[in-house]
Amino acid sequence: MDFSSDTSAPTHSAVIEALAAVNTGRQASYGGDEYTSRVRGVLAAVLETDDFDFWLTASGTAANALALSCFCPPTGAILCHEEAHIQRDERGAPEFFTGGGKLSLLPGEAARIDEMALREALAGIDHGFVHETPAHLLSLTNLTECGAAYSVDTIAHYAALAHEAGLTVHLDGARLSNALASTGASAADMTWRAGVDVLCLGLTKTGAIGCEIVILFGEARAKSAELQARAKRSGHMPPKMRYLAAQALALLDDGLWLSLAADANQKAKQLANALCAPGDVTLAYPVDGNEVFAHLPAGRAEALSAKGAKFYPWPGGSHRFVCAWTTTDEDIDALITAMA
Amino acid sequence: MDFSSDTSAPTHSAVIEALAAVNTGRQASYGGDEYTSRVRGVLAAVLETDDFDFWLTASGTAANALALSCFCPPTGAILCHEEAHIQRDERGAPEFFTGGGKLSLLPGEAARIDEMALREALAGIDHGFVHETPAHLLSLTNLTECGAAYSVDTIAHYAALAHEAGLTVHLDGARLSNALASTGASAADMTWRAGVDVLCLGLTKTGAIGCEIVILFGEARAKSAELQARAKRSGHMPPKMRYLAAQALALLDDGLWLSLAADANQKAKQLANALCAPGDVTLAYPVDGNEVFAHLPAGRAEALSAKGAKFYPWPGGSHRFVCAWTTTDEDIDALITAMA
Amino acid sequence: MDFSSDTSAPTHSAVIEALAAVNTGRQASYGGDEYTSRVRGVLAAVLETDDFDFWLTASGTAANALALSCFCPPTGAILCHEEAHIQRDERGAPEFFTGGGKLSLLPGEAARIDEMALREALAGIDHGFVHETPAHLLSLTNLTECGAAYSVDTIAHYAALAHEAGLTVHLDGARLSNALASTGASAADMTWRAGVDVLCLGLTKTGAIGCEIVILFGEARAKSAELQARAKRSGHMPPKMRYLAAQALALLDDGLWLSLAADANQKAKQLANALCAPGDVTLAYPVDGNEVFAHLPAGRAEALSAKGAKFYPWPGGSHRFVCAWTTTDEDIDALITAMA
Amino acid sequence: MDFSSDTSAPTHSAVIEALAAVNTGRQASYGGDEYTSRVRGVLAAVLETDDFDFWLTASGTAANALALSCFCPPTGAILCHEEAHIQRDERGAPEFFTGGGKLSLLPGEAARIDEMALREALAGIDHGFVHETPAHLLSLTNLTECGAAYSVDTIAHYAALAHEAGLTVHLDGARLSNALASTGASAADMTWRAGVDVLCLGLTKTGAIGCEIVILFGEARAKSAELQARAKRSGHMPPKMRYLAAQALALLDDGLWLSLAADANQKAKQLANALCAPGDVTLAYPVDGNEVFAHLPAGRAEALSAKGAKFYPWPGGSHRFVCAWTTTDEDIDALITAMA
Repeated sequence: MDFSSDTSAPTHSAVIEALAAVNTGRQASYGGDEYTSRVRGVLAAVLETDDFDFWLTASGTAANALALSCFCPPTGAILCHEEAHIQRDERGAPEFFTGGGKLSLLPGEAARIDEMALREALAGIDHGFVHETPAHLLSLTNLTECGAAYSVDTIAHYAALAHEAGLTVHLDGARLSNALASTGASAADMTWRAGVDVLCLGLTKTGAIGCEIVILFGEARAKSAELQARAKRSGHMPPKMRYLAAQALALLDDGLWLSLAADANQKAKQLANALCAPGDVTLAYPVDGNEVFAHLPAGRAEALSAKGAKFYPWPGGSHRFVCAWTTTDEDIDALITAMA
Repeated sequence: MDFSSDTSAPTHSAVIEALAAVNTGRQASYGGDEYTSRVRGVLAAVLETDDFDFWLTASGTAANALALSCFCPPTGAILCHEEAHIQRDERGAPEFFTGGGKLSLLPGEAARIDEMALREALAGIDHGFVHETPAHLLSLTNLTECGAAYSVDTIAHYAALAHEAGLTVHLDGARLSNALASTGASAADMTWRAGVDVLCLGLTKTGAIGCEIVILFGEARAKSAELQARAKRSGHMPPKMRYLAAQALALLDDGLWLSLAADANQKAKQLANALCAPGDVTLAYPVDGNEVFAHLPAGRAEALSAKGAKFYPWPGGSHRFVCAWTTTDEDIDALITAMA
Repeated sequence: MDFSSDTSAPTHSAVIEALAAVNTGRQASYGGDEYTSRVRGVLAAVLETDDFDFWLTASGTAANALALSCFCPPTGAILCHEEAHIQRDERGAPEFFTGGGKLSLLPGEAARIDEMALREALAGIDHGFVHETPAHLLSLTNLTECGAAYSVDTIAHYAALAHEAGLTVHLDGARLSNALASTGASAADMTWRAGVDVLCLGLTKTGAIGCEIVILFGEARAKSAELQARAKRSGHMPPKMRYLAAQALALLDDGLWLSLAADANQKAKQLANALCAPGDVTLAYPVDGNEVFAHLPAGRAEALSAKGAKFYPWPGGSHRFVCAWTTTDEDIDALITAMA
Repeated sequence: MDFSSDTSAPTHSAVIEALAAVNTGRQASYGGDEYTSRVRGVLAAVLETDDFDFWLTASGTAANALALSCFCPPTGAILCHEEAHIQRDERGAPEFFTGGGKLSLLPGEAARIDEMALREALAGIDHGFVHETPAHLLSLTNLTECGAAYSVDTIAHYAALAHEAGLTVHLDGARLSNALASTGASAADMTWRAGVDVLCLGLTKTGAIGCEIVILFGEARAKSAELQARAKRSGHMPPKMRYLAAQALALLDDGLWLSLAADANQKAKQLANALCAPGDVTLAYPVDGNEVFAHLPAGRAEALSAKGAKFYPWPGGSHRFVCAWTTTDEDIDALITAMA
């Protein structure tokens, strides 16, 4: 009954097998190996374009902070939702990597940025007014921190607004696989075709040991050398890069990342239905991926915890239950039984 | 004939096996797992003490920068050798993590700090003189960047001098295993018993995929929470920590790290002897570990490269040949044949 | 009709005279001069205590950022109002000086922090939860950015709450003189006796050329050397400190700062009354100092500007009119005439 | 007998008069005032060009750090002499303002960079080698920290070498007036015509209260907005800018800065001659400006100090005697008498 996080699950066996497979012979260090080269081809197929550069990291916080720091100067700001992971869960990593840039926080339901708030923030940017900190980026998260998905159309719409105002568009895709599986959109449609300039494509929550890919599209590729320099100086240029590449290859190559995400999403749907069936539980946010946020009756959370269930209370009064690729029907049945 | 780096070698099969072994069931994220707990016990045995805290990272640059940033304020400096890895090969990571601290560079043969230079630097520290940046740490590296080893006595002597002057002592142990294997010293004698306050114990160059351990001894443990906060905000707190722990356990548990280092050292000795046998090659530095720095006759380096040998030119005119745990007699024979 | 800012006014003639008076002979650089020493005595009289250290700066942004950076680590946060000067008008100076610390924003009427929001924020601090950034300081502003005053009692109450939670209390006193003149409180009562640990006492808006004093009270004095080191490296340690000292002496010595503030406050009262007399203008916030925020009828602002009046629109739809020590009855009459 | 520093001297009376003269009426804040506008015209005359932007600061450390931070990214380095003020006397300001950039130190006599060392450093820059920190700027100082002057030809030669290597050229001109007075060169010839891209023109040591001008020439003007944003966030955008402008106008307008510098230089020549006359004192460096560095016989420094003379010991064993615009024949006679 561990619904605490998708990161408490083990990695998929294909990942371990891939690590074993690349573990032979000498390979150039720091990304010069043949497996890292292969990742390029696989990404090109997944993203339906060749117009990108990428960097592999073991950490989602690092991926986001590196991506943001290439586009937000120390004197600039980043527009994001007030519950975004970069604001609430990364201990100031964006501020650290940007050298003291600011996050400008926007409201919105289910951790999706409200359009009016976005428009107002964009309209207020004045690079000529030296006292205030102008935004240089819009950072979106899909799935959001509340498990909701932005549609491709909304991303494209917001990205267009941001571009009009001269901003770069960042997508925190720590759970992009879940959003893709849930909406049926292609990775290309949800990212560069929608106007995303820099993507953090997450594989860790989906099933890797630790593998997140920073991807620069089109004109953003001008920052590729800077991205590597920043990766190096922040300790995110591992000498034996082949083992990060192996994880990416194992998950991306044959669509495994999407099928694992679809499995986790399916379990979340089951869980949501089961939680709501008795009628005394309501959902706080849409279940667009592998996370269920539920308002529990008084005392229920304590009772469940006492029976060994693992999950977290969430700001706003709900509780979060996360399904992983390893979540089983039995896990869900056990939780529902414990609730009875 | 790949003598380019110890990091171009694969990981030891025991590491892959360890990853597979921990790859089962749910584990608490961010270091709360059972394997990370076990590392503590293994380290206690290796270090012959319980008086320490530790943090696992995948990167040596990160380990050093995190360690240094806990002890050097933005207004302070770090004494190190002018050829130290933190100065020459980490793209400003110490300056980044400390928020703009300075490295104060000291000379010395074979990348070992000269005692007189150290004494002079320590004597010059004046915390009351606000214009200059006072040193807060002494950073030593063992093996040095020139493949030489500090003896336990020298480390203890330098640490005592540094402590007298109020400094913290950091040891960059990216190749500590090689220094231990070469000198026969115990890890305890070469670190905390010699006065080292914060150790970066490297396993990557020895044979891990990527595993470096920051270890705070004694009073330095007061920085343990800060170390974790800094690790988090720099993207060095992977959610699935068990896979870092597995690497540490595989290599430390049964002395594998030391036997792999001894093997690499042995190959370096063989290589050095073979290189010098014809009489036209001289060693630039002592071969105290797994690295050989040789002055080659004119044209030799180009000829070797043309035949496919991999190695690097080094500041000062020598060339560096690195042996790894995978280096074989055949590798050495091939190089010597190529030189003939 | 210049109501744009108190900083568009000239300095008081006493300040120019003081500069001329100290302009003789050699004086030790960097604060070692006799005039800077005299400031200590004058501050002791003003603050009714000897238990403080201080540093003179020419800039209010610098004073705040230096003060905050001594108490908020890069991994920490500062609680402040969402309209605070440090958040809206200092271009990220707190983030820069702290090395990437965060501002955690609180709501409240008239830019005074709401007590419930403060209590909630304090209750949510968890230094053991590494993912979130815990607050280390509470920063209050008096006058607030909306021209309202905190009472001594509220400051004392909020400071007590903050101290209970382990926070340091900072007071941005860019317009402290106006708050003191308006409330009749003593400087001691409104600062250290109320629990303020670090005060930025502003004289620039009151009538100096540029003189702000960072004052560390009681236990906060432990940061005195760090404050100086941070001042030095940020370019806020002028060699000829005597000219900053002269400004402080001219304004503080005989209560000139308070009488100038009282004059400006009085003019603001007159202005508010005159603005509201016709019945179509309402005040947005209390007039507790030298600033008037008024809701003007449609078209009025444009009409006034066309006639040469200077003032600023303010977030929330009001307009700000600032009185300075140089504001005259004629200035006010001219504005009122222009409105007719 | 105060030869401790040129900054222990008072300001010239023309400066005080200028402050009094601008102290009337309202002026726009933050550099929008008429006096700051006038500085532009005066600078254009002094520099014989209109192709520049400028910013006024009260601090030389700030001027340098702001200038450098506009051209050196956090991942970059600055080439400078190992005794440069930015390395030895600014408490890490360049590292702070650049967000962790590095200073790469070069040797050379009398704190003038050695040409061979410069060529070697420039040749070693490899932006493609991510591990090392490539230089983005060359920073020269004229006068140097040892009181020697670079000739216009040397500056032009070094600047050409730097430009060929893609670097920006910074000139720390804290004592530029002394170098100009000593060499007879024009300000234009020694700066932009010689290839200087960004100049810190110092007036404080010459006779201002505190006034240093950052000047961006030609293509460097692209950084003008960034310079202002960085000035704002570091507390170097004083609201009442007119008082900085007044200082600049008083000193630059009629060549007063050069005549004051010439006076100080002349006194330094007299002092050097007098010191050397008895034959037991030798000069450590050329006397190209207002500073004399002398090797004193054993016991002489202590004896002089005992008689009340003020001066500083210097690295390398000499002692520094600084003349200011206020230094008199009597001051020099008194020192010489004390030495007898």
